[in-house]
Amino acid sequence: MTDQTQVPQSLPVTSADVDAAAKVIAPFAVRTPLLSPSVLSERVGARVFLKPELLQRTGSFKFRGAFNKLSSIPMSARGGGVVAFSSGNHAQGVAAAAKILNMQATIVMPADAPLSKRERTKGYGAEVVLYERAGEDREAIAGEIARKRGATIVPPYDDPLVIAGQGTLGREIAEDMAALGLAPDIVVAPASGGGLIAGVATAVKARFPQAAIIVAEPEEYNDHGLSLRAGHREAHHATGRTICDALMAAIPGKITFSINSQLLAQGVTASEDEVRAAVAFAYRELKLVVEPGGAVGLAALLAGRIDVQGKNVVIVLSGGNVDADLFARLVA
Amino acid sequence: MTDQTQVPQSLPVTSADVDAAAKVIAPFAVRTPLLSPSVLSERVGARVFLKPELLQRTGSFKFRGAFNKLSSIPMSARGGGVVAFSSGNHAQGVAAAAKILNMQATIVMPADAPLSKRERTKGYGAEVVLYERAGEDREAIAGEIARKRGATIVPPYDDPLVIAGQGTLGREIAEDMAALGLAPDIVVAPASGGGLIAGVATAVKARFPQAAIIVAEPEEYNDHGLSLRAGHREAHHATGRTICDALMAAIPGKITFSINSQLLAQGVTASEDEVRAAVAFAYRELKLVVEPGGAVGLAALLAGRIDVQGKNVVIVLSGGNVDADLFARLVA
Repeated sequence: MTDQTQVPQSLPVTSADVDAAAKVIAPFAVRTPLLSPSVLSERVGARVFLKPELLQRTGSFKFRGAFNKLSSIPMSARGGGVVAFSSGNHAQGVAAAAKILNMQATIVMPADAPLSKRERTKGYGAEVVLYERAGEDREAIAGEIARKRGATIVPPYDDPLVIAGQGTLGREIAEDMAALGLAPDIVVAPASGGGLIAGVATAVKARFPQAAIIVAEPEEYNDHGLSLRAGHREAHHATGRTICDALMAAIPGKITFSINSQLLAQGVTASEDEVRAAVAFAYRELKLVVEPGGAVGLAALLAGRIDVQGKNVVIVLSGGNVDADLFARLVA
Repeated sequence: MTDQTQVPQSLPVTSADVDAAAKVIAPFAVRTPLLSPSVLSERVGARVFLKPELLQRTGSFKFRGAFNKLSSIPMSARGGGVVAFSSGNHAQGVAAAAKILNMQATIVMPADAPLSKRERTKGYGAEVVLYERAGEDREAIAGEIARKRGATIVPPYDDPLVIAGQGTLGREIAEDMAALGLAPDIVVAPASGGGLIAGVATAVKARFPQAAIIVAEPEEYNDHGLSLRAGHREAHHATGRTICDALMAAIPGKITFSINSQLLAQGVTASEDEVRAAVAFAYRELKLVVEPGGAVGLAALLAGRIDVQGKNVVIVLSGGNVDADLFARLVA
């Protein structure tokens, strides 16, 4: 972590890359609104804005990065299709982007991924190959498929074009805050491999260098928080599962961490119960369907884990793909 | 129904009244976004826009009309407070508006109103008085309370200031469509007493006289459809309940129908099962929590009951206050 007001020039993704990605995705991505529910602002004593990426095509931000990446594949290589490994949201993003661009997509997913995410991925016309989280190496499986078919691998986060694509949502936050005549003091987004928060940090700090970008993680899956404190990439120590199925990467990406280690202010966490409460709050008070992994920033806010008093705070709700039976249990 | 391109001049609410209401409510109401989910447009073969009033303060459009009406009460009369009768959404709108304006609110609600609506109404500091739908006259109960306390009655729909307040959402639709360089061909909104659709029609047709304004109702609670066809106010013939608890008024309002009979193109209905399917679709594909009564226009659209092919269609999702156990059953 360096002086927060100084944006280094040597990063692998720049705000110009995000600007370019914004042009590429504009015809197909949703420009999601910036919401400001009074019920939330009044509750936490801050001016809170929400970026509801559950309204994005495929129900999560992942379409942005996937479409930007797939659009960069030369026409000559598109016949081989694309391969991705993902627990569900990246899968849908890649599948939907491939469908628009007339490419074949194969997605390697863990066998325990939420049913809705598997079904929706197939719904976009992708082939789904399941693997066991314990014992099988999804990158190896994807690599093997890519070799056999001449397909292009679409990494879930550790790729400059993917990061730039996710950054477009940070760019929209910056634009919308500027249009309101406001500067964001704090921007909070979840991280699994760190592509979303790296893109958001890149775009937001280009316009608002003073903004503190905070990464939110499940309590035991706090590899970004650990790594920021250590100054180098560290894996989390979790052994069990988390309700945040989208946030289970073991360690920050290399490229993403080279950005995040320079641009992020800190990490915060939320407990499993706090995440559950945030999903229920979003249902009851915001009327939004947020998946657990997408609600971890909101959970940290509601649990008082971020010092927001009197500040302008933007929370990214990164997705809304949650199985109906789990959602029903969470809101009951 | 008259020539759709001719806006009569003698209506009890004008677009200037809506403009005035927009100024009054601006500091406290949410300017809800206009969404355009590709999944919906692709499914029905039209360019579909949604006005998600579930994102409005209190979870429904009712705050708009209530706040506009309460703001008009002279300071000298505010000490007596306000009284309203409502099955739930108007109740919350009045309670929340009264709280902001430092007035006491008493709400007369049916004993079978959804628990969440009763609890939320109390949560805004209002006193809730329950009555039995069969056998008790809510207007008489409200009138009695008003006389005793010197309170002002806030009608749920048959009031020019309430209608003008609801019209502000139509005004936002017109503004946002114009900003996109588009003209709405069709605008669909639900009706109980008809205040919402009257306000929407007033605002939209002032800017887009060619737009067809369509009222959506539950199959058996089709009093607006019946009345439009008859050319005078007619009650529906339903005897049972509908899942659309917010849309159970027996007959269009006098003032609302004097507007709607001149500005509306037609009525459409949706069956109970079509409404259930629409609530589930909104959860699964749109990631929005829509209450059954708020989803009736979407239900009619998804069921193919409106000729939308190739058109620009705006659907008002009027609210999202639905009990968690019912919602869980609908999305399972």
